[in-house]
Amino acid sequence: MSANVAPERVVLLAGGVGGARLAHGLQEHLGSNLAVVVNTADDVERHGLAVSPDHDTVMYTLAGIANRAWGWGIEGETFAAAAQLEKLGEESWFRLGDRDLATHIVRTARLRAGDRPTDVARDLQRALGVQSPILPMTDAMVRTEVRTDDGWLAFQDYFVRLHQEPDVREIRFVGIEDAALTPEVGAALEESDAIVIAPSNPFVSVQPILAVAGIEAALQTARARGAPVVAVSGIIGGKALKGPADRMLASLGHDSSALGVARLYTGIADVFVLDAVDAALEPAIAALGLRVVVTDTIMADDAGRVRLAADVLAAAGAGPRPA
Amino acid sequence: MSANVAPERVVLLAGGVGGARLAHGLQEHLGSNLAVVVNTADDVERHGLAVSPDHDTVMYTLAGIANRAWGWGIEGETFAAAAQLEKLGEESWFRLGDRDLATHIVRTARLRAGDRPTDVARDLQRALGVQSPILPMTDAMVRTEVRTDDGWLAFQDYFVRLHQEPDVREIRFVGIEDAALTPEVGAALEESDAIVIAPSNPFVSVQPILAVAGIEAALQTARARGAPVVAVSGIIGGKALKGPADRMLASLGHDSSALGVARLYTGIADVFVLDAVDAALEPAIAALGLRVVVTDTIMADDAGRVRLAADVLAAAGAGPRPA
Repeated sequence: MSANVAPERVVLLAGGVGGARLAHGLQEHLGSNLAVVVNTADDVERHGLAVSPDHDTVMYTLAGIANRAWGWGIEGETFAAAAQLEKLGEESWFRLGDRDLATHIVRTARLRAGDRPTDVARDLQRALGVQSPILPMTDAMVRTEVRTDDGWLAFQDYFVRLHQEPDVREIRFVGIEDAALTPEVGAALEESDAIVIAPSNPFVSVQPILAVAGIEAALQTARARGAPVVAVSGIIGGKALKGPADRMLASLGHDSSALGVARLYTGIADVFVLDAVDAALEPAIAALGLRVVVTDTIMADDAGRVRLAADVLAAAGAGPRPA
Repeated sequence: MSANVAPERVVLLAGGVGGARLAHGLQEHLGSNLAVVVNTADDVERHGLAVSPDHDTVMYTLAGIANRAWGWGIEGETFAAAAQLEKLGEESWFRLGDRDLATHIVRTARLRAGDRPTDVARDLQRALGVQSPILPMTDAMVRTEVRTDDGWLAFQDYFVRLHQEPDVREIRFVGIEDAALTPEVGAALEESDAIVIAPSNPFVSVQPILAVAGIEAALQTARARGAPVVAVSGIIGGKALKGPADRMLASLGHDSSALGVARLYTGIADVFVLDAVDAALEPAIAALGLRVVVTDTIMADDAGRVRLAADVLAAAGAGPRPA
């Protein structure tokens, strides 16, 4: 790809809310030429149902039915089943909405019938009119666990039940050694003109994707043929817009800043997209060998999503390597 | 048990709506001394969830949360999940309410974990505050199928999807040869002072229960020691109050009347409870060897349920055999 030509086919590596918003902006520009590779290591079984929080947040967002105030679930959602589940003695800290339940019911039935997670996900997306394919990072089961001062916890225990309050000392992805990239993820990376790392949590959203056997190698192959990797900082002014990434950076021994994020992506990314409030970090990040693009990275509304996506595509089009 | 003493411990054999209403009346008199043995041959899997229509109708009724207008489901029910399931491409002819879904979700998870249907049912009932145990007729899987002029149909296909419109030529209970009564059903029958057959469909509600290995033998043992079997007609003036029992009687070659029902229970029942509108049938039914009790069998409201239950208990207390 020559410099200053916007990429036609893009792969976005994404977690939940931040990933979903940028995915939405990119879908507006690229339609089905965008493929979103989504983290599945925070999937969880609730009430015997297979729940895929990151996938579903991206899916509902791309379908235009996401609840914007919550950052998860469906707009206009009701909770009649959840209230009844509680009456029946079920734990209530992970509440699933009535419409959302339909997704998990269909997914669970399909998976039990032996269908591949990637196929089930695509059929759900198509039923909701989603243009850009959202690809689970793997069809294998991977589960993030975090070590706190009280021991290892399943991710959603930490994230939802404990409101991300404990300090995270260590992170592991149970099952990752048996996880491989899918043919769909492999093809998307192979065909991509650029790869974008969403402003998602580097540790628990992006790292699991990169840890799937074959994904980082495919990403490096893409870089080698000139497709740039553009990472967008999810830390602005030292704070995560959503979630515990800032506190995780600190408790895991990193700078709780966009610089700390940039260091994590050294050797993986070519371009680093930095919010204007962090412009002073540009020299330090450039010194890591990353080309830095400074812009407004807050996606306050649909227009903000589309604008940041345009900036990201322009940054990718400017070429794969630091000037 | 001596004559004219109301029974203390009663077993009710029940299908759905009619069974649920009489169960409710009997629960008011007997509390936990009533055990309801419920048909499970019309259970069905929908969207991968285990649904027990007769059990749940009885459970919701005994819990005081049944929807009285529909005869199934929960009062004040909503259908957000069902609408979403339809959007996701699922068949929509068997709509499950949002609160009702909670029951099926919990049941399915427990059954998949290996718990016995009887234990799962009792825990659901307890969570909803049901006094009288509702016992699945068996822990095995039995499925009613009906033969129409277009071939064999799964029961809920016929009952819900086709609105009971085709004529039923034959009925079979798939899996019945491997079904045995549970220890709980065995104990309830052994301890009973009287057994009541609800005004449910004789062919698809009562017959599957009696066809479970050990149940009819246990019932005959109870009769032999003096516990009477009281059957309540579900046909009034030649019509079923609910469901297709009247048309099934005709299409299967029986009289579509309370007399036709009474003939089916000859050799099983001691007492036959007949509605006053059918009083003219009394001599013909008595000629079958059944003691006939004529009363108002329509349970229009709670008072009607309690009154019919009292009449049934009085009929049982009057002794096991025709005078």
